[in-house]
Amino acid sequence: METVSTAKAFGGTQGVYRHASEATGTDMTFSVYVPPHAEGAKLPVVWYLSGLTCTHANVTDKGEYRRACAKLGLIFVAPDTSPRGVGVADDPAGAWDFGLGAGFYVDATEPPFAAHYRMWRYVTEELPALIAAQFPADMARQSIMGHSMGGHGALTMGLTFPDTYTAVSAFAPIVAPGQVPWGEKALGGYLGRDRAAWRKHDAVALIEDGARVPALLVDQGDADSFLADQLKPELLAAACETAGIPLTLRMQPGYDHSYSFISTFMADHLSWHAERLG
Amino acid sequence: METVSTAKAFGGTQGVYRHASEATGTDMTFSVYVPPHAEGAKLPVVWYLSGLTCTHANVTDKGEYRRACAKLGLIFVAPDTSPRGVGVADDPAGAWDFGLGAGFYVDATEPPFAAHYRMWRYVTEELPALIAAQFPADMARQSIMGHSMGGHGALTMGLTFPDTYTAVSAFAPIVAPGQVPWGEKALGGYLGRDRAAWRKHDAVALIEDGARVPALLVDQGDADSFLADQLKPELLAAACETAGIPLTLRMQPGYDHSYSFISTFMADHLSWHAERLG
Repeated sequence: METVSTAKAFGGTQGVYRHASEATGTDMTFSVYVPPHAEGAKLPVVWYLSGLTCTHANVTDKGEYRRACAKLGLIFVAPDTSPRGVGVADDPAGAWDFGLGAGFYVDATEPPFAAHYRMWRYVTEELPALIAAQFPADMARQSIMGHSMGGHGALTMGLTFPDTYTAVSAFAPIVAPGQVPWGEKALGGYLGRDRAAWRKHDAVALIEDGARVPALLVDQGDADSFLADQLKPELLAAACETAGIPLTLRMQPGYDHSYSFISTFMADHLSWHAERLG
Repeated sequence: METVSTAKAFGGTQGVYRHASEATGTDMTFSVYVPPHAEGAKLPVVWYLSGLTCTHANVTDKGEYRRACAKLGLIFVAPDTSPRGVGVADDPAGAWDFGLGAGFYVDATEPPFAAHYRMWRYVTEELPALIAAQFPADMARQSIMGHSMGGHGALTMGLTFPDTYTAVSAFAPIVAPGQVPWGEKALGGYLGRDRAAWRKHDAVALIEDGARVPALLVDQGDADSFLADQLKPELLAAACETAGIPLTLRMQPGYDHSYSFISTFMADHLSWHAERLG
């Protein structure tokens, strides 16, 4: 692991790091904030998965999570959203909603994407092992959150590994990729035309198929331009209602899809995670 | 005035705006955060002046001021750091410490810079008039802060107009441009070789020449790579000591020159301003 940069912030250390990933077969860059802590302490880890077009840098620059993480004693990890580099396939037309910056947190099975797009394994296996080895992390206390495509990633990972992620929340998540244009394009492109294979990467389908978590927190701006066509939080609400999963879905009046929205509610989410992480 | 973008944040509105500036003879872009407020209320205005290479966007993205401004009821205005556009002269060698992004908050008298580099008049006259006209601003309650070159701007404007700016603070400011390489290059380039003309754009010289403010707050990281050669807070401390100006100079261990440092102490500065703005 190579250190790209570090800086003291809110008494802790904001770092950016790079490593050669076995999962993706590329170099991967990620950021980690370690709050001030006692020598030898092991701290809970909050995973933050970013949305379409983002790298680790968007939330690192604009997420405003450090004050709350410093106060609550949380490590905050922000991975990239796709493999990148020479030989990594992109959207054939260069669109921003597929390929680079749009890995959708799946392990692709379709060529040419299967060669590098293995973000599921990267985020749930390889990067946690690296975090455990390199940072003062208590891997028995992890939680996960994300935005938009990253909200999709957080929900699907949280529902798949409820024993790993003690708390799961999202900002404006894609809750049912199998039922919206972004998700149909991505899951079709990465996983192929058989929609049965998509269900384990679709939060609503996972819940319909029996996945359970103790609770979910979702914030959604009602001025979000993607709300009606791509996000559809009502589908998550209906699935949770049927399954008996306590969902706190907060429709936030006037907020859009940007980091102005995310940063406003970031401290709320971190407090909610910290309560559950103990 | 043209609205470039607006987004709801922390209950208020973060906007970016553009207008044709008479002072600089160019279009100028700036950002304004207006906190939540009662209909018809007039709010105090905090000016934030940015450092070398920055535009309004750096602090808008990374400054983490909105939570505190929302809580304290402060409007936060971030201008650009120089004129920009076709026909605006730049450093002859394209250096980052002079010309574009490096206006040093003076009205240039030297050709070719005198044609557009009029940031003193822009920040102290033209933009305040626009803010007064377009936003719910109480211009009887203004304060000013800045970072590095912008700390220089905040200190010199605050010392020159103590009746306008009720509070003055800075992050890692250039306190004596007449005595350091960045300042000698900039003041020489914009104002000419006569060092007497530089003194009204040098905080330490202004204090030596009789300028007074009720108090100053300065934070400075001790891991700032520019500390010894360009910033020299000890010169400000000595001048304030001699003049009887109460200076709170906080050397912050381990902090560098970046927004990791600024964002950590931003809320402290805003609280200090709010106390003085009433």
